[in-house]
Amino acid sequence: VERVRRGREFVQLPGPTNIPDRVLNAMHEPARDFAAPAFVDKALSCLNDLKRVFQTTGDVFAFSSNGHGAWEVALANLFSPGDMVLIPDTGRFALSWAEMARSLDLEVVMTPTTMRHPVDAEAVAEQLERDRERRIKAVLAVQVETSTGMLHDMGALRRALDATGHPALLVVDAIASLACIDLPMDGLGIDVVIAASQKGLMLPAGLAFIAVGAKADAVSQENPAPRKYWDWRSRRGSESYMWFYGTPPTQMIGGLRVSLDMLFEEGLENVFARHRRLAGAVRAAVGRWSEAGALEFQTVPKAARSDTVTAIRMPEHDPDSLRFFCRDHLSTAFGAGLGPLQGQVLRIGHLGDLNEPMILGALAALEVAMRARGVPSAEGGVAAAVEHLARDIVRGSS
Amino acid sequence: VERVRRGREFVQLPGPTNIPDRVLNAMHEPARDFAAPAFVDKALSCLNDLKRVFQTTGDVFAFSSNGHGAWEVALANLFSPGDMVLIPDTGRFALSWAEMARSLDLEVVMTPTTMRHPVDAEAVAEQLERDRERRIKAVLAVQVETSTGMLHDMGALRRALDATGHPALLVVDAIASLACIDLPMDGLGIDVVIAASQKGLMLPAGLAFIAVGAKADAVSQENPAPRKYWDWRSRRGSESYMWFYGTPPTQMIGGLRVSLDMLFEEGLENVFARHRRLAGAVRAAVGRWSEAGALEFQTVPKAARSDTVTAIRMPEHDPDSLRFFCRDHLSTAFGAGLGPLQGQVLRIGHLGDLNEPMILGALAALEVAMRARGVPSAEGGVAAAVEHLARDIVRGSS
Amino acid sequence: VERVRRGREFVQLPGPTNIPDRVLNAMHEPARDFAAPAFVDKALSCLNDLKRVFQTTGDVFAFSSNGHGAWEVALANLFSPGDMVLIPDTGRFALSWAEMARSLDLEVVMTPTTMRHPVDAEAVAEQLERDRERRIKAVLAVQVETSTGMLHDMGALRRALDATGHPALLVVDAIASLACIDLPMDGLGIDVVIAASQKGLMLPAGLAFIAVGAKADAVSQENPAPRKYWDWRSRRGSESYMWFYGTPPTQMIGGLRVSLDMLFEEGLENVFARHRRLAGAVRAAVGRWSEAGALEFQTVPKAARSDTVTAIRMPEHDPDSLRFFCRDHLSTAFGAGLGPLQGQVLRIGHLGDLNEPMILGALAALEVAMRARGVPSAEGGVAAAVEHLARDIVRGSS
Amino acid sequence: VERVRRGREFVQLPGPTNIPDRVLNAMHEPARDFAAPAFVDKALSCLNDLKRVFQTTGDVFAFSSNGHGAWEVALANLFSPGDMVLIPDTGRFALSWAEMARSLDLEVVMTPTTMRHPVDAEAVAEQLERDRERRIKAVLAVQVETSTGMLHDMGALRRALDATGHPALLVVDAIASLACIDLPMDGLGIDVVIAASQKGLMLPAGLAFIAVGAKADAVSQENPAPRKYWDWRSRRGSESYMWFYGTPPTQMIGGLRVSLDMLFEEGLENVFARHRRLAGAVRAAVGRWSEAGALEFQTVPKAARSDTVTAIRMPEHDPDSLRFFCRDHLSTAFGAGLGPLQGQVLRIGHLGDLNEPMILGALAALEVAMRARGVPSAEGGVAAAVEHLARDIVRGSS
Repeated sequence: VERVRRGREFVQLPGPTNIPDRVLNAMHEPARDFAAPAFVDKALSCLNDLKRVFQTTGDVFAFSSNGHGAWEVALANLFSPGDMVLIPDTGRFALSWAEMARSLDLEVVMTPTTMRHPVDAEAVAEQLERDRERRIKAVLAVQVETSTGMLHDMGALRRALDATGHPALLVVDAIASLACIDLPMDGLGIDVVIAASQKGLMLPAGLAFIAVGAKADAVSQENPAPRKYWDWRSRRGSESYMWFYGTPPTQMIGGLRVSLDMLFEEGLENVFARHRRLAGAVRAAVGRWSEAGALEFQTVPKAARSDTVTAIRMPEHDPDSLRFFCRDHLSTAFGAGLGPLQGQVLRIGHLGDLNEPMILGALAALEVAMRARGVPSAEGGVAAAVEHLARDIVRGSS
Repeated sequence: VERVRRGREFVQLPGPTNIPDRVLNAMHEPARDFAAPAFVDKALSCLNDLKRVFQTTGDVFAFSSNGHGAWEVALANLFSPGDMVLIPDTGRFALSWAEMARSLDLEVVMTPTTMRHPVDAEAVAEQLERDRERRIKAVLAVQVETSTGMLHDMGALRRALDATGHPALLVVDAIASLACIDLPMDGLGIDVVIAASQKGLMLPAGLAFIAVGAKADAVSQENPAPRKYWDWRSRRGSESYMWFYGTPPTQMIGGLRVSLDMLFEEGLENVFARHRRLAGAVRAAVGRWSEAGALEFQTVPKAARSDTVTAIRMPEHDPDSLRFFCRDHLSTAFGAGLGPLQGQVLRIGHLGDLNEPMILGALAALEVAMRARGVPSAEGGVAAAVEHLARDIVRGSS
Repeated sequence: VERVRRGREFVQLPGPTNIPDRVLNAMHEPARDFAAPAFVDKALSCLNDLKRVFQTTGDVFAFSSNGHGAWEVALANLFSPGDMVLIPDTGRFALSWAEMARSLDLEVVMTPTTMRHPVDAEAVAEQLERDRERRIKAVLAVQVETSTGMLHDMGALRRALDATGHPALLVVDAIASLACIDLPMDGLGIDVVIAASQKGLMLPAGLAFIAVGAKADAVSQENPAPRKYWDWRSRRGSESYMWFYGTPPTQMIGGLRVSLDMLFEEGLENVFARHRRLAGAVRAAVGRWSEAGALEFQTVPKAARSDTVTAIRMPEHDPDSLRFFCRDHLSTAFGAGLGPLQGQVLRIGHLGDLNEPMILGALAALEVAMRARGVPSAEGGVAAAVEHLARDIVRGSS
Repeated sequence: VERVRRGREFVQLPGPTNIPDRVLNAMHEPARDFAAPAFVDKALSCLNDLKRVFQTTGDVFAFSSNGHGAWEVALANLFSPGDMVLIPDTGRFALSWAEMARSLDLEVVMTPTTMRHPVDAEAVAEQLERDRERRIKAVLAVQVETSTGMLHDMGALRRALDATGHPALLVVDAIASLACIDLPMDGLGIDVVIAASQKGLMLPAGLAFIAVGAKADAVSQENPAPRKYWDWRSRRGSESYMWFYGTPPTQMIGGLRVSLDMLFEEGLENVFARHRRLAGAVRAAVGRWSEAGALEFQTVPKAARSDTVTAIRMPEHDPDSLRFFCRDHLSTAFGAGLGPLQGQVLRIGHLGDLNEPMILGALAALEVAMRARGVPSAEGGVAAAVEHLARDIVRGSS
């Protein structure tokens, strides 16, 4: 067994994602006086520019925490112990959010999932309609469930909710989709969107974000639940330490400034198109491999396969031993199956700072591994991805 | 007015502190697979080695958050709404901690302070003795209050508490002292110590730490209060995402590994001695300047002047305009007066990755500024610091 | 046309090659006192350890210059104006070295080349045998000519020279092969080997190296030619500025220390094997593409195809427009045809800090480009590379 | 003895000088395709913008080499073996340049120096006037001799030369003064100016520069001397590898682009003024220390004390043991005495990326060392520097 690996590791996790050199360089800076104008202006510009990324005119708040912190920000500000929330069960991350809600003494109802099909908006609506007493304060929905690689249709959910006339807030977890897949928060009428730094924003883990619409902000103002670190009401003010409730993470903000610049330089529409194109290459490869029956998409409907992460079922092979083989022999890291899917799927992250040779190299490495490990008929996947990209480029140029 | 500054800015804040190049380089690394052994082993070694820094055999837990998050970790795990805590009023940071406790629906009693003298351990003990019903669950004490530059004697506090026989826990905020000033947690019988990354640990802000003794851990296990992100009970387990409850901050842990290595290479005793020596230089300078009466130490008793931060009162001058002058004309950042001391003091941070020419350069810049701004008799301070260090070196070599 | 590219560019030039993050981090250091022990010891260890890489007990000298400087080091130290040297014509780089020799008033004779077949050692020997007056002072030979991607057999050359009894020195340019392809300098009896930092040593351009055997050193000691910067006789001594004849490049030496550590950690034999394996993948792809006749290897004999660079002839296509397409649409940089091969070949560098997904990604990108640009039958190349690597791994594990 | 030092080392050498973080970050970049427009445009902009720094309309050429290489560039392009050059003896660096010239078979005449007084322009003129046969091809003069800390008046030299009517070229070594001290090349009628990257340009060592006026360029075109690496005639052309005669140092050029930006942002006049102000602080300190007689300026005339480096004579103390003490106990590196001044002086570099607290910290560290080592009356130096800067700031603001 080869121990020492050379060259750059390909990190095809659904997160953390690759950090651009420009971002890493921006973060390579000494300690700064966070009260000086240079930092204050930079932090303010980031918080303002995040509104463009969230596609909202509401406020965006930043928290020193990981993405799970973003979940708690939403729960702590909007609800009090005893409140009821409705969480469509999309898989591991919905379950974890529900577990957190219960730990915070909220009451949780869930709609069921097969984990192979997307959220049934009608079933959610029916659940709301049954809630005659209006006890359900909000629907908490995950746009892209990274454990299944599934995109759930927030527009359909919104329309179904509207049809019921139920006043529940719609709170969306866009952690695995923000700045990768279009989500017009204000356009769709979403009340709250949460996200984190280590996915489409191409930063290390360590910052959580929440975008808050007017209705949600009003709910928070009235909410008597005890809270402090997560309380977004105290995150306004004129000085930078107030925006972060303590010492600001100056290096992370330096990196965020650059990642926002990069997103705007490319153009959000082009960022979405790039994710679609590269995801198409992944789906072309997996589709070809699946023809021989050795593996299959976790997500059944084509339209629900996310542009940011793809989960592959391997009924007759151990996805984890394949992952370890890729990691130890081929310098490529893929994601494991999580929660109910542990040991059943291998996940390919394809979001963030990614381009054609990166994803092609990762797919080719996976094909090498499958051949070396005797997965039958593991052929033609990379060739299909190549074909997809060639066609896409020709189309784009014409 | 000169706009463009050249050379490295001297950051003499009480935090964030200077980040060593070795640490910044260690943090300059691509996204990693946090489930791979390379990271898992590194993170585990950090959590273990932190015990040496906290001087405890208890567990140390890490949280993606700033230092205020560390306060909330302690409060969320140990107390339930309605519980009473006793906080000696040492200044701004004690007041903020108390404000947080009240926001979390705890009941707070404080012992008074003049902000120029340290905590009166006897007064704290008397307060406990008056608590016949044992409603006070804990004493929350700040070892170094950075708003006043004052060191509070945790040993004396411990002894006074012991004398009362009161079962309250002793929870110490060592944010501005850990890895700078000796605090033998187990040796003194402290139940909980909290700290953060951006001070003596020489990292960016973004990690909070809590060291938990057996008695405090038992309290937490029984505590019914709703909590999740901060719950240290869920921070144990075999996989790295459990230790951080979500995506681990791999770059920060990379930096922490190096900062711990640096502390151990130097030796904690030598680290403490270095802080004492450099603080001595600051006190020599301030002492000389104060002879002419233009300024004075915020902390009156010599023994209570902290080795990590010094607050200078300027009754007849505006410390903020002096700070801005230093920042804009002399590339040196000092700390502002906070809370009740806003506009009254200028604070010199002297902790973390610091050496003789760094502190001498900062003191000399301040002396330049005072002369340029007409602070009378602002002379001889740097010369006194030079004299102090020369004597100290000679003594150390003999 | 897409303007903004995202993700990491794949740099598949024959040089400069990818710089490992560890090396870049080691180079990210402030100015240092080059007379202090920390640097002196590091520089000395590098010069010593380079002997292992050059496989010699002779001296290795370092020069602040690029690789062309290494050519001049050899010429300036060994020859005087009017001296004659024999240079087998292997392509562009042999021609440039010859041009340099003529510019330095040396007389140059060359043996001919078709640029598609390696040096004919017998023809070189015949040329020496015709030199009855022993005017030829040395044979200057390029081990890997990067313009053709051809490996020339230095062992065969040595044996042919030995057979003639001619006293000419053998001076080898290993710029594109050192630390990639085995070249036992002492074992083969090579007198001088030159190299540079930006290829197998995985550093930026800026350092040239020369390894000097005893016979060549003696020639240099007697050589009256005027010289100073390049004079290796003045590169000995006890102080670091002597080894570099002026201010040492401390950052480059910092990087070199790490690149040497990395080579030794992996093991030189494993480094060579890795280059062979990855080159095999390239040759598998190019071989498959060439089956349809649209392109062919520049180097005809299989045994002479270098493990570090592959040149592909494209008789009916413009390799430069294909290169630009890869660069502008696929974030992948390949090398151009040089000198006599300008506009005729596309070159794939596959040396240095490289692994499987990197080379697979680059090959796949090239296949995308060929398909998008209508190069006929450009299929199956990446699949062949995948197959090659899978077989190679299986073989290696058994 | 303390082994482990903490904090940033103060590097007060006359070179290499401190590298700004912005420059180090710009150099922290992966290997690049040097033929791609992004690099080509950057390199071209640097070569053009260097003309502003050299204050010339002539060409500026860049060489991968250290500063000694710049000397050889001038000698190799302008002279042939047997040519005579006149070098005013200003100290170690003039002597080394003369040694190089002799090694290249040039004939050297020197005018004498006491090393405590600047070049006598009249004596140089007399030497030229004695050269009836016009054998002297050029006067090679060092603007700032770093071994003595002396500024030599290039304007006076030019005028004296002009008065003789002798056709010798004037070639100036501005290695220790470019971008620190004004030198209007075209304005003064200087034919050639050489410099290097590691001083006022704030980069690592590794790039040498030469600015060439029309008369010198014409001389070079006619010069039959054999040369190649250094030949600036081959450094023109349309492709980036021609400008560097081989693989361009892309990281260094990335750094150079930023250092030029920084110089222009500050403004060259302000850069010169900053050097004058900080040098004034050094001279105030040394002047005060010298009052007690324990040390003295190497350079006697005040007007000839350079704004970039100060050499201090210590007749009764060992400057090297003081240097080692500063290095080992005070994290501050000063320069040694060189050549004829070895063991006699200590040199303070004060050029490049420097500001007030940096130089004050270094001076204070030296004062600490002198006190600790018992240098008598070593007092008041830093206080004098403080006073100087305070006055200078007040003057500048009024």
